[in-house]
Amino acid sequence: MNEGGAPTGRDALSAAGGEARYPDELRQLVERFLEELDFAAAPAARPLVEAMRYSLLAGGKRIRPVLSLAVAERLGQPPQRVLPFAAALELIHTYSLIHDDLPAIDNDSLRRGVPTCHVRFGEDIAILAGDGLFAEAFRLITDRQEGDARLVVAALSEVAGATGVQGMVGGQYMDVAATASRDDDLRLLHLLKTGRLIEASVAGAALLCGVTGPALEPFRRFAREIGLLFQIVDDILDVDGEADDLGKTAGKDAQLDKTTYVSRFGLDGARRLAGESHARARASLTELGGDVGSLTAVTDYILYRRS
Amino acid sequence: MNEGGAPTGRDALSAAGGEARYPDELRQLVERFLEELDFAAAPAARPLVEAMRYSLLAGGKRIRPVLSLAVAERLGQPPQRVLPFAAALELIHTYSLIHDDLPAIDNDSLRRGVPTCHVRFGEDIAILAGDGLFAEAFRLITDRQEGDARLVVAALSEVAGATGVQGMVGGQYMDVAATASRDDDLRLLHLLKTGRLIEASVAGAALLCGVTGPALEPFRRFAREIGLLFQIVDDILDVDGEADDLGKTAGKDAQLDKTTYVSRFGLDGARRLAGESHARARASLTELGGDVGSLTAVTDYILYRRS
Repeated sequence: MNEGGAPTGRDALSAAGGEARYPDELRQLVERFLEELDFAAAPAARPLVEAMRYSLLAGGKRIRPVLSLAVAERLGQPPQRVLPFAAALELIHTYSLIHDDLPAIDNDSLRRGVPTCHVRFGEDIAILAGDGLFAEAFRLITDRQEGDARLVVAALSEVAGATGVQGMVGGQYMDVAATASRDDDLRLLHLLKTGRLIEASVAGAALLCGVTGPALEPFRRFAREIGLLFQIVDDILDVDGEADDLGKTAGKDAQLDKTTYVSRFGLDGARRLAGESHARARASLTELGGDVGSLTAVTDYILYRRS
Repeated sequence: MNEGGAPTGRDALSAAGGEARYPDELRQLVERFLEELDFAAAPAARPLVEAMRYSLLAGGKRIRPVLSLAVAERLGQPPQRVLPFAAALELIHTYSLIHDDLPAIDNDSLRRGVPTCHVRFGEDIAILAGDGLFAEAFRLITDRQEGDARLVVAALSEVAGATGVQGMVGGQYMDVAATASRDDDLRLLHLLKTGRLIEASVAGAALLCGVTGPALEPFRRFAREIGLLFQIVDDILDVDGEADDLGKTAGKDAQLDKTTYVSRFGLDGARRLAGESHARARASLTELGGDVGSLTAVTDYILYRRS
């Protein structure tokens, strides 16, 4: 598979019985929840909230929160059950994009099709907008996420672990320091930088729905696989995607001389790895069983997306 | 009082029956706990942890964590009972200093007597070190703070609220945007920027020791008062302090044309306000009653400190 013209090959479509439709009803739930957030800031701090909302509401597929809602669905719970937790993940994702785009880090000027936060509001406001989104993500969970308090703490632990030095920030450091020269390091970098937060989306939602201990493991295996898939496709899109589709600068990785799946394995090699990872993710969903329609759709979207 | 030559006037000392000794045994507990933190980072991310530890272990009186431990003491609990929570507050305080010092914000090169994080490690690493400390603070509480899970969530809520747009980040925005032209705004700015985290140190520790509902109020009143006192003295020290004592650049506020208690009320006016605030804080401790020795000592230190 994956020898076609599309970034990751649509030949797999027919084999898999067609691409599942992205769960837009779950995405809309997230979108509405995010739009209603004003963080109850004092009037004097509202311009900061505007900067936070500018980046937060710039669109995107909301993959992380949609994954959380899809997990609730699989566990027979209404998606609203985990909505504050789910939305918090999008705040965190947005915070990480704002900080990554800063002049001192990736120095990117375009994101989700609009000027990056620091281009629009200045570097000082962008740093604070990121910091604010991070704090408000935790507040969303502590103040609005219902459920057994022990499970809320466990879900918060997933998020804190996924964003700290054993997660996002650690991966971002490896990226900045360009320490990932070996394949093992490349895999670790991506596991930390993107994989752990995707795993938190899935495992945190499962925890909030009462899944603990060994019963969490199949959810984690699925999440780790789509985290890997996500990054491989990201690297392919940076080479193969159009800036118009991406909504951000293409070719950025090569420009920054970053080690990526494409630079290590070539475009065809990366496409093959993506196809294999997608197949493993689908297999892990079969193993999970039950109503995995939305989880399957997100998995397919991660492979077939063009941005 | 406070007409003397010392920054905030030592005449009050005799009236108050002498300055209470800073609770160094509590500070040492915090110090040892912080020194032992390595965040279990992968080898590839350890240089980031070094940058985090560089700023975290640069000294300071550890006022926020010591306050938490002193609250536990007042409530008849061993200080170790709230130590992970207390230490998390110092991680957060350090994160805020690192980000505030960045070139795009206060552009400061000296902090706690040593080069600031971005001067020593570069701006990219400093941004990530701040982000990392913030995440690890939450992880410290979710993963290591013992206690009833509902109370842990409540303590986490205090921290998230104190650091978000209704707290530290909101106040820092007001500072950066220089929107505080009226006295009310100045008070709000400081309440958000420093007051809320000091309140979280006190209220969070009390919560973890089982104090909830109306019983929390006297603790909050005390905390709000020392938060105010802290800021007034900070403004006085920026004018009156020596860089050698401060460990940071003096005269920074005037240079940045910031509105401060000194710029609003003059040096003598600010000293008078500090004395009045200190007296109110002491009165609120009398109202609290019980073993408030360490809380009193921190209150005195906040007034009499030279840095």
